[in-house]
Amino acid sequence: MKVFRYRLLLAYDGAGYSGWQVQPGRPTIQGEMETTLARIDGAPAKVHGSGRTDKGVHAAGQVAHVDLVNKWEPSDLVRALNGSLPQDIRALRVIHAASDFHARRDALAKEYRYRIWNGSVLPPELRLYRAFCVRPLNVASMNKAAAILVGRHDFAAFTANPNRKVPDTTRNLMRLCVSKRGRDLAIAARADGFLFRMVRSLAGFLIRVGEGDLLPESASELLASRVRTAVVPTAPPQGLVLWRVWY
Amino acid sequence: MKVFRYRLLLAYDGAGYSGWQVQPGRPTIQGEMETTLARIDGAPAKVHGSGRTDKGVHAAGQVAHVDLVNKWEPSDLVRALNGSLPQDIRALRVIHAASDFHARRDALAKEYRYRIWNGSVLPPELRLYRAFCVRPLNVASMNKAAAILVGRHDFAAFTANPNRKVPDTTRNLMRLCVSKRGRDLAIAARADGFLFRMVRSLAGFLIRVGEGDLLPESASELLASRVRTAVVPTAPPQGLVLWRVWY
Repeated sequence: MKVFRYRLLLAYDGAGYSGWQVQPGRPTIQGEMETTLARIDGAPAKVHGSGRTDKGVHAAGQVAHVDLVNKWEPSDLVRALNGSLPQDIRALRVIHAASDFHARRDALAKEYRYRIWNGSVLPPELRLYRAFCVRPLNVASMNKAAAILVGRHDFAAFTANPNRKVPDTTRNLMRLCVSKRGRDLAIAARADGFLFRMVRSLAGFLIRVGEGDLLPESASELLASRVRTAVVPTAPPQGLVLWRVWY
Repeated sequence: MKVFRYRLLLAYDGAGYSGWQVQPGRPTIQGEMETTLARIDGAPAKVHGSGRTDKGVHAAGQVAHVDLVNKWEPSDLVRALNGSLPQDIRALRVIHAASDFHARRDALAKEYRYRIWNGSVLPPELRLYRAFCVRPLNVASMNKAAAILVGRHDFAAFTANPNRKVPDTTRNLMRLCVSKRGRDLAIAARADGFLFRMVRSLAGFLIRVGEGDLLPESASELLASRVRTAVVPTAPPQGLVLWRVWY
């Protein structure tokens, strides 16, 4: 049967979901997308994301592809999706894709943002969208540590589960920088690919540096150690946003 | 029994509540405050707000007073409250108040903000914190209409339920202005007091002006009519935030 491939740009609030990937009996972004697309296209639909996001993690620019039996005008598909999807998942854009486009395999780079509220009280409406850090964070120290981490390195010390069989833990971290506006901090992390919980591990490490618990220079030792230890905490999921995927 | 009066500055996310005021069997902000204060102070507590907020309406600066049996250090009370309250209600500040201070009766003025997302897709994490308006809003027209409404007027045309017995529907609207940053619009409304659903009615009217459905000059006719009609819609609750109360 002839099918048409579409590339979808999606934003979602991960607070109400058990992450991207379909899991029986749990609400997932992929699950909602597949149910909705099947309903509006009239045939079962398999949605492939650029990668999984964990439970509670958000996206401002997740990319996915899907094959549909109908030839849709992209703007009509956006409208149909947003008319049917729950309000916490939105289609931002749809384009026709080549029949061999693959959202995961073709991704050249990804950027995440990790957002932290650095003040004495976390504003109620940000509680699901920020990590919360009461101790004042030294942004200059964090950026000093971040600069050491940028580049092609073995990030084994910054992935959550070293028991997972990953043949190669080297990644090219193209950008890692911390910016602050008022009490709102954001860490931007861009790489050709990320290991399991790598961004939350980088964020956890940078927060400890910002709090003064670790020196910026400890970044070098950690990279060289290639072992994940309790020195690097995993920052909580609600601070994380999948920001952009490049193809 | 000797009691101590405290003035509380509160922020809350109203999305999960049936409004400020206690209602049996429903979650309310006042109810959560009273339950929490009774637990930490060890005696029943009655919390008086500067005013009620409707179901789904938020606060960045609600003020309340309460009498407690213990003499608390204000910072300890803030900590105890934030340790016990649900995360969507936060105590921002506590001060000792005179025994005759009254959060509602002593309020000199209040400011609300009404926030609108003016774009084709409402970002998922703002869905509970913005009204959503797809048609482009003309901010200059809205401000022209707003300028007509500023001043001491009979706002009977801008309150939701004219059957409620309100002896006097004249209020002094000190500030009404619209600002825009990107796709995010905010209407600031400050007055010596507000009628029932007055801010949401002003916002509903200004949105119609911004969309080009009504001329800015219609503000004069509406004021003069002193009758609420379907010309003025009530904007949805999630856009509204109680911003500040003056004493």
